[in-house]
Amino acid sequence: MEKRPTILVTNDDGYLAKGLKRLANLMRQFGKVVVVSTEQVKSAQGHSMTINEPLRLRQFEKTDDFEMYVLNGCPVDCAKVGFQMILDEYPDLLVSGINHGSNASTNVIYSGTMAAVIEACMDGIPAIGFSVEDYAFDANFDHADKYILDITKKVLDEGLPKGVCLNVNFPKFSEGNPIKGVKICRQAKARWKEIFDHRKDPHGRDYFWIGGEFIVEDDGTDTDVYALKNNYASIVPTHYDWTAYDVMNKFKSFEK
Amino acid sequence: MEKRPTILVTNDDGYLAKGLKRLANLMRQFGKVVVVSTEQVKSAQGHSMTINEPLRLRQFEKTDDFEMYVLNGCPVDCAKVGFQMILDEYPDLLVSGINHGSNASTNVIYSGTMAAVIEACMDGIPAIGFSVEDYAFDANFDHADKYILDITKKVLDEGLPKGVCLNVNFPKFSEGNPIKGVKICRQAKARWKEIFDHRKDPHGRDYFWIGGEFIVEDDGTDTDVYALKNNYASIVPTHYDWTAYDVMNKFKSFEK
Repeated sequence: MEKRPTILVTNDDGYLAKGLKRLANLMRQFGKVVVVSTEQVKSAQGHSMTINEPLRLRQFEKTDDFEMYVLNGCPVDCAKVGFQMILDEYPDLLVSGINHGSNASTNVIYSGTMAAVIEACMDGIPAIGFSVEDYAFDANFDHADKYILDITKKVLDEGLPKGVCLNVNFPKFSEGNPIKGVKICRQAKARWKEIFDHRKDPHGRDYFWIGGEFIVEDDGTDTDVYALKNNYASIVPTHYDWTAYDVMNKFKSFEK
Repeated sequence: MEKRPTILVTNDDGYLAKGLKRLANLMRQFGKVVVVSTEQVKSAQGHSMTINEPLRLRQFEKTDDFEMYVLNGCPVDCAKVGFQMILDEYPDLLVSGINHGSNASTNVIYSGTMAAVIEACMDGIPAIGFSVEDYAFDANFDHADKYILDITKKVLDEGLPKGVCLNVNFPKFSEGNPIKGVKICRQAKARWKEIFDHRKDPHGRDYFWIGGEFIVEDDGTDTDVYALKNNYASIVPTHYDWTAYDVMNKFKSFEK
């Protein structure tokens, strides 16, 4: 009998998140599932690692085909701890999500969900991040299930090119408006314009919160933002070599 | 008289770091300097933002051509706050560093230093990260000065291509071994292999620290790691479009 794959599941919304539980349950169709979740919400923590504080790992559940652990760290820590402390060998796949909120476009840069995926990719493990454009705690993920299963099956069967992982995003659930399909996309050009909310604490001291407005500066019809807007799921093949090869020759005059 | 440029200086080693002070002082040759520093050491915090805690900003110094602020956040917060709360308009340049420790190769992915640079780049501001391969609090930066001045002047004079920033690294200072020159490089393929240090706290409970060993899996002579090893400064032109364009056609079968 063929060995069932081991799938590591993580995300950045904390261990109580609906999306995390849903993804873990979906993955049980394919093999042994090991969940390593952040204890707290760690959204927008990018590729943060916990090196200034000690880490503690708690085991929640352990059966033959399902294990769940909670770590007081970030998604990147969860991936590292999963690979090298919990499992005896690297998993066959890492999936991160289902994230409550979009990681399309330049959101990928801030994303803890995708940081865990990129960490796996650096270790040579096939990895996929799944996110839905809905920040609500009670977000509806019904429309994403079958696409998550299809994409995961394909990656388990065929693998991924070396150094490449997938950033998969779904539009927000809309009753009577099923997703039209899946598009392979490039990351749309966009940025966050900050909005600061200034307040005074009860002691009269100033503090503020960072919020922001997402500004898309890209008219392309081949982007993830465009696909989502038109009710398609988007897949951006994503890599971690950030060298800007196309302009390297412009810098020759810097050499000496 | 031509307006002198405004240069925002930040980094992730905290406001007491020698490298930050050194970079700020060097930049005073070019224009008005505004330093926005993290209060604490925020190494390996990647593109982390502070959205779960309130932020507080303190002003340390303010003269006509030099201002310094300290923020209880991450380098990305420092960039955002500098651009949109402190300055009346975007600066002409953001520089981040001088970092105590290398940001070459895949270290760029974990780097707070480079996260601030990438944040600036997303806002269309020319930006450069400077790092030296020496983690010591009292690291010697003498050998880097003239290269930092040269590279900064060139970027102030000529700008940078849209969507591209620079990741500049210097080898560790070595007496009698001046840097041989500057190489334009690609980001070397490498990864961190984790080493976990398990301990018990005074209450008998388990905790652990993440450490690691950096494993370079790249024999290329065109990489930043190779340049540094051969006592050159490395410049990697870096972008924030992580789309793996070269393999996009391999994913056509995912579309539906």
